[in-house]
Amino acid sequence: ADLPVNELISEIEHNLLPEHMAILLEAFPLKSRLIIWQQLSSEYQQNIFLEMKNESRQMLLDSMDDDSCLPLFDKLDANSLLELTEHLSDRFIEYAISQMTVKQRSHFKKAQDYSESEAGHWQSFDENKIPEKLKVSAAKKICAKNRAPLSEVIYIIDTESKLLGEIAINRLLTLNDETLLTDVIYQEVQYLEATKDIEEAADAVILSGKSALPIIDENGCLTGRLDLDSAYQYKEQLKDNQLFQSAGLSDEEDLFSSVWLSSKNRAIWLGINLLTAFLASWFIGLFEETLQQVVALAVLMPVVASMGGISGSQTLTLIIRGLALGQITDANRQAIVKKELKVGAINGILWATVIGIITFYWFANPLLSVTICIAILGNILIASLSGVWVPWLLNKFNIDPALSGAVILTTVTDIFGFIAFLGCGTLLLL
Amino acid sequence: ADLPVNELISEIEHNLLPEHMAILLEAFPLKSRLIIWQQLSSEYQQNIFLEMKNESRQMLLDSMDDDSCLPLFDKLDANSLLELTEHLSDRFIEYAISQMTVKQRSHFKKAQDYSESEAGHWQSFDENKIPEKLKVSAAKKICAKNRAPLSEVIYIIDTESKLLGEIAINRLLTLNDETLLTDVIYQEVQYLEATKDIEEAADAVILSGKSALPIIDENGCLTGRLDLDSAYQYKEQLKDNQLFQSAGLSDEEDLFSSVWLSSKNRAIWLGINLLTAFLASWFIGLFEETLQQVVALAVLMPVVASMGGISGSQTLTLIIRGLALGQITDANRQAIVKKELKVGAINGILWATVIGIITFYWFANPLLSVTICIAILGNILIASLSGVWVPWLLNKFNIDPALSGAVILTTVTDIFGFIAFLGCGTLLLL
Repeated sequence: ADLPVNELISEIEHNLLPEHMAILLEAFPLKSRLIIWQQLSSEYQQNIFLEMKNESRQMLLDSMDDDSCLPLFDKLDANSLLELTEHLSDRFIEYAISQMTVKQRSHFKKAQDYSESEAGHWQSFDENKIPEKLKVSAAKKICAKNRAPLSEVIYIIDTESKLLGEIAINRLLTLNDETLLTDVIYQEVQYLEATKDIEEAADAVILSGKSALPIIDENGCLTGRLDLDSAYQYKEQLKDNQLFQSAGLSDEEDLFSSVWLSSKNRAIWLGINLLTAFLASWFIGLFEETLQQVVALAVLMPVVASMGGISGSQTLTLIIRGLALGQITDANRQAIVKKELKVGAINGILWATVIGIITFYWFANPLLSVTICIAILGNILIASLSGVWVPWLLNKFNIDPALSGAVILTTVTDIFGFIAFLGCGTLLLL
Repeated sequence: ADLPVNELISEIEHNLLPEHMAILLEAFPLKSRLIIWQQLSSEYQQNIFLEMKNESRQMLLDSMDDDSCLPLFDKLDANSLLELTEHLSDRFIEYAISQMTVKQRSHFKKAQDYSESEAGHWQSFDENKIPEKLKVSAAKKICAKNRAPLSEVIYIIDTESKLLGEIAINRLLTLNDETLLTDVIYQEVQYLEATKDIEEAADAVILSGKSALPIIDENGCLTGRLDLDSAYQYKEQLKDNQLFQSAGLSDEEDLFSSVWLSSKNRAIWLGINLLTAFLASWFIGLFEETLQQVVALAVLMPVVASMGGISGSQTLTLIIRGLALGQITDANRQAIVKKELKVGAINGILWATVIGIITFYWFANPLLSVTICIAILGNILIASLSGVWVPWLLNKFNIDPALSGAVILTTVTDIFGFIAFLGCGTLLLL
């Protein structure tokens, strides 16, 4: 009865990439997850472990005793350990460092000199560099052995590791063996400084049309590369985290994160939203008397709030992308506001009319219809205006508008909508 | 006075990539955009044109007479024209085809055999293939001349273009010139079928760790490659479009899209949301009498709706990612629902209590506090349940939950919240 399980496991290990297995494992509740985990070979375990989300990793470590965790940290390379450090206890990090090769340890230390917002932290340390003094024949031998993925060129360095130039591997093919490298290298290499902002660095790699760009430190020494895959993955991760954070989730949360942890993370966002909801309620409360006399206003409140919220978030989405692309400046902001107000006016007039007609047939009160028309048009215009201004101001204060823009915007449109609707109602209907 | 402008323009053309210039142009209102455009050299114009969004491209074409548009379509390669075709009038497409080289024209026709959801439509046609009969020396010469970006290997084909194997360019470096290719090629090449779903194909390229995978047609003939850059760009574009569509925007909209076009696109989404808002209003309307007697219920309605909406969208965000990763199946759905309900219960009890206490101090009506406690707890639980079920069902019916999930979910939580709150209020407070 044991045999089929073993066969199944070895089948899985042969056919399923660790990346896929990590995703698959996170689809299991913790208990089943552990049972499967224990069946896997330790090498496969380590590879999966590196691909997991931090929180899943932590759940796994918490459920195993410390000694059986240790093999997971054996002989890691610098890049793997770098991905783990942020969320790992010092005990494991120290153990992992002690188990590294001397070379990987020095790579690890070098990368740790840079913060997570700098390109140097994210560099990979493939050994594709050769000293300038060599001949083409030597370069050929080194390149033939070196199978670093995503490398089309080899970098040439001097005795102090300074980057002098590069040569494309395919160019080496037809060069004479006796030629000196210094005679054939391309010197105007595009490079990244290790302290460069990682987002800008990733964009530079993607736009370069190359598979990687070299990274140099403050002395001009070549320390590593940032390759296309890492660049795109960094950007993807960033967007993914943003999406989660904008819903008030921890960007680490997986399907079976612990109930307490999930509840705690989500509670904070619910609390913030509660404040804004009570703020809206407080404004409604100012019109209690009006509501008592014209209860239809209470019935229609969600329509006013919802139309403003949707209009605003349409403008917001467009502006957030424009800000991210650097398209919005002091010079064109007013032109954008004008255009959004025009769009708002068209949709405001259209939908105010539609809503006015529907409410007239529903409540047979022409003044109520006028009231809601004014409120809808006003709220959609305010929404268009705030849809530009709210993210613009957040951006000015270095707050990511993708995270908090929507909450602030709907608070504005809710409050303005209720005041306009109930205020007009008080004036026209009492 | 003319000279500085010319200098500025040539400065720009030298230093700004067409990708960047396209983004920059879209930051200008149409009039200024055209003035800048006319200053640019026709080669640079063509490069920018290829990088623009379809709608910006259309605006440009609309504002120029047909003849001055034609140079934009001169000597395009197959991949460039493929990106344009979807939104271009037949006249321009025919002109572009007539101006292509014979080779590019045949590439173009080949790619057009596949639909946009198939990998074959997105392949690039670099010439990195060589016949099996050649010797290593010939392969070296071909590779040395061929500087296709993102290529680490060269593919070996037979006389009928069938893919036989590949050889890494760096391995060629140390091979003897007289060796026959057939003796050294690696035959177990990972390839993509041209009819493969483009999303799966892109994932395969990204996971392969290579810079590209070869694409073969139904006869096993090598037709092109899908490279890492195209794979990531396809995925990025997909996510970007999703974000825009989920806000009811056209995924083509730029900052200065025409006011009428923007208004039209956005109006549809506003209309759909209006239906759901009126639905909620209709349910509130059922409780008109209650609202008239206890106006505090009207004041607190936004709190109930908002807490349910936020809870639900937190679960929804998590589940949409789980569905996209294929982590959610019939086997674990119930376990996920159970976990989400637990999280919902914890946050429901917590925030119901907080809200109960606040409303007690505000309205000094213990039964009102009990009413809102019940409604909040109930609505957060329903939100947790719907947050799993709504996207799950949409996915079952092949509707992308990222596009319409949020609207449906908030409709559910709004309606349930109002019924629970006003219903309890009717029972307890009248």
